[in-house]
Amino acid sequence: MTEFANRMDGITGSAIRELFKLLSNPEIISFGGGNPAKESFPVSDVTKIVNDLLTEKGEAILQYGPTEGYMPLKQAYTEHILRPKGLDANADELLVLSGSSQGLDILAKIFTNPGETILVEAPTFLGALQAFRMYQANIVTVENDSNGINLESLERLMRELKPKLFYCISTFQNPSGGTLPLEKRKKVAELAEKYDVIVIEDDPYCDLRYTGEVLPTIKQFDKSGHVIMLNSFSKILSPGIRVGMAFGNKEIIRKMTIAKQSADTHTSNLSQAIAAEFLSRGLLPKHLERINKFYAERLNTMVNGMKKHFPKECKYTIPEGGLFIWCEMPEGTKMLDIWKEATSKYNVAFIPGKHFYPTAEGHENTFRLNFSMETPERIEAGIEALGKLLQKYVK
Amino acid sequence: MTEFANRMDGITGSAIRELFKLLSNPEIISFGGGNPAKESFPVSDVTKIVNDLLTEKGEAILQYGPTEGYMPLKQAYTEHILRPKGLDANADELLVLSGSSQGLDILAKIFTNPGETILVEAPTFLGALQAFRMYQANIVTVENDSNGINLESLERLMRELKPKLFYCISTFQNPSGGTLPLEKRKKVAELAEKYDVIVIEDDPYCDLRYTGEVLPTIKQFDKSGHVIMLNSFSKILSPGIRVGMAFGNKEIIRKMTIAKQSADTHTSNLSQAIAAEFLSRGLLPKHLERINKFYAERLNTMVNGMKKHFPKECKYTIPEGGLFIWCEMPEGTKMLDIWKEATSKYNVAFIPGKHFYPTAEGHENTFRLNFSMETPERIEAGIEALGKLLQKYVK
Repeated sequence: MTEFANRMDGITGSAIRELFKLLSNPEIISFGGGNPAKESFPVSDVTKIVNDLLTEKGEAILQYGPTEGYMPLKQAYTEHILRPKGLDANADELLVLSGSSQGLDILAKIFTNPGETILVEAPTFLGALQAFRMYQANIVTVENDSNGINLESLERLMRELKPKLFYCISTFQNPSGGTLPLEKRKKVAELAEKYDVIVIEDDPYCDLRYTGEVLPTIKQFDKSGHVIMLNSFSKILSPGIRVGMAFGNKEIIRKMTIAKQSADTHTSNLSQAIAAEFLSRGLLPKHLERINKFYAERLNTMVNGMKKHFPKECKYTIPEGGLFIWCEMPEGTKMLDIWKEATSKYNVAFIPGKHFYPTAEGHENTFRLNFSMETPERIEAGIEALGKLLQKYVK
Repeated sequence: MTEFANRMDGITGSAIRELFKLLSNPEIISFGGGNPAKESFPVSDVTKIVNDLLTEKGEAILQYGPTEGYMPLKQAYTEHILRPKGLDANADELLVLSGSSQGLDILAKIFTNPGETILVEAPTFLGALQAFRMYQANIVTVENDSNGINLESLERLMRELKPKLFYCISTFQNPSGGTLPLEKRKKVAELAEKYDVIVIEDDPYCDLRYTGEVLPTIKQFDKSGHVIMLNSFSKILSPGIRVGMAFGNKEIIRKMTIAKQSADTHTSNLSQAIAAEFLSRGLLPKHLERINKFYAERLNTMVNGMKKHFPKECKYTIPEGGLFIWCEMPEGTKMLDIWKEATSKYNVAFIPGKHFYPTAEGHENTFRLNFSMETPERIEAGIEALGKLLQKYVK
């Protein structure tokens, strides 16, 4: 058979996706996924919006659109997403994406030659690792200290390895749930300029905040155009419509646009217009209020269950928002074995943490819990079951 | 500023797109684009479909979906698109794409290392050239004879250059309007097997047939799994929703799926579901009947105008379908100069043909006319004006 390109060597698809396939059994209480709750979607608002859009400008919506994106979406994003965060953008600093994951693919494509370095947090988003691997990047993890990435490690790696990109989920990180402190945000922007490294600030969870204070983004400290911010409508509106946004230096946005042109021509106009209308009709704040209350309850239910049922040897940090809690069992615990027992005998699932690291070895004692997809009742039952199982492994 | 990857060297975006930007003036009669007529879109059918979909399964449509694609779309595509053509597919031989252009990007990504050869027709679709360039492919054109590609040239290039891919628009080619004869289709499939080359059979225009007999696709002669067929909903339903389909060997489809996973996760569920419902409700045949009648009138109007007003030195072939007529003025004519005069003084536009060749030199006497976007009245007026201008250049 025809040989595939070298970039496909060892690329076998997401291990997590394979785990997901085992979870079609509805009897299993799943803390494994990362989807929004299905009850969170504003179905009737979207139905009304789509009706109005097709009635008022159906021919334009169904026609080809510009690669750069649907202008009303750029305007609504600037007004309703950026300005409330103290940011502002011209249209040529924005590119609409088919989900923010497209931004990871395109940024790796336009910036990295095979073998060049991309720095990532450890643990990090598996989809990013997969996108970067496809461009044969040298993926290197930055060390952590007690509150996120260690800046000395980051600076040393930037100096020594001359990376092209540093990939960072600054708020309610997937999978750790952590949020980068203010001072570190400032410093990341400074280091990016000093060492001429592009920071990809991926920020899909920032609006899912249940407690604590909003922090400025890394992008807000970017004086030199080295930070590209990626936002997504997946967690605040709908992942199924596939809409994200890149905001950055216009030269970079221009190159991204060229790359997107030959990748998918443009993002679905209907999807873009739905997102634009959802914002411009002022529906987002009320929607966020509703879903954040809803997610906060699920988070609290999970944390209360963990306090009650988990062994005290299992360490975790309670996140201020997002969708995930990151847990560490004592060194030497094999969470993959526990996963097998959990799914086959305890009808409860999570994701073993080792999948979130670029290297195959280590971190076998870690795991990620998601609290968005199950009802509070099922969260209580699932955490109790999981707690019982974990107890067996610390005795 | 941070250096871009080598693959971006010399990549400046589509020249055609830049030409399009000059055409926002509504006084210009444009034969330059390649969009479907806006009047061709089944807006009210789509509105009804979207309403039903969101009402019946809004939560599932707005949630994440599988990278492989929305199963009802694969089923409807198999039943309503493939089977009427004498083809059949299992679900694992199909991948839903965000427009068929995504298929070009993904196939170049998974098959070609930098410097490896991709064979293309000359002229060919500019978007394909752009996608292939991004993977630093060595793009080589196959010679033509009086009815499409020259098979001796194709075989010689396959033998000598060991290409990974041969890209071919088999029916109503863009930009030439030509259709590969039956015997050549058979032979292309045989050569692909013999020399272990993947044929990308891009077939977005096949259902826009106004005269003549339907031909079997190259895919129908594929015994070895070397042909990947790409279809699109852009010309038969709507380009704005961005839905296409790849049909091929399941190992290749599997690798394409992995590549798509890190490119955009999946295609918009709403877009996929619209396409699925449009097919499964049996709306396509009537729709095609309507738009084909409509396009045939525009084609005839254009051809009649060309017969009347164009200099006899301008050669062209009347296509049996699709959206384009390809024209050749006498050797030495500079269509780019004529284009400038046409748009600035005659208020009429076309695309100079040299953009459709991978090399910058030559073919300056060729141009492409599109007949789908203007009304018959404007086609008449535009062709008369263009004819007058062309006459000046043959005297």
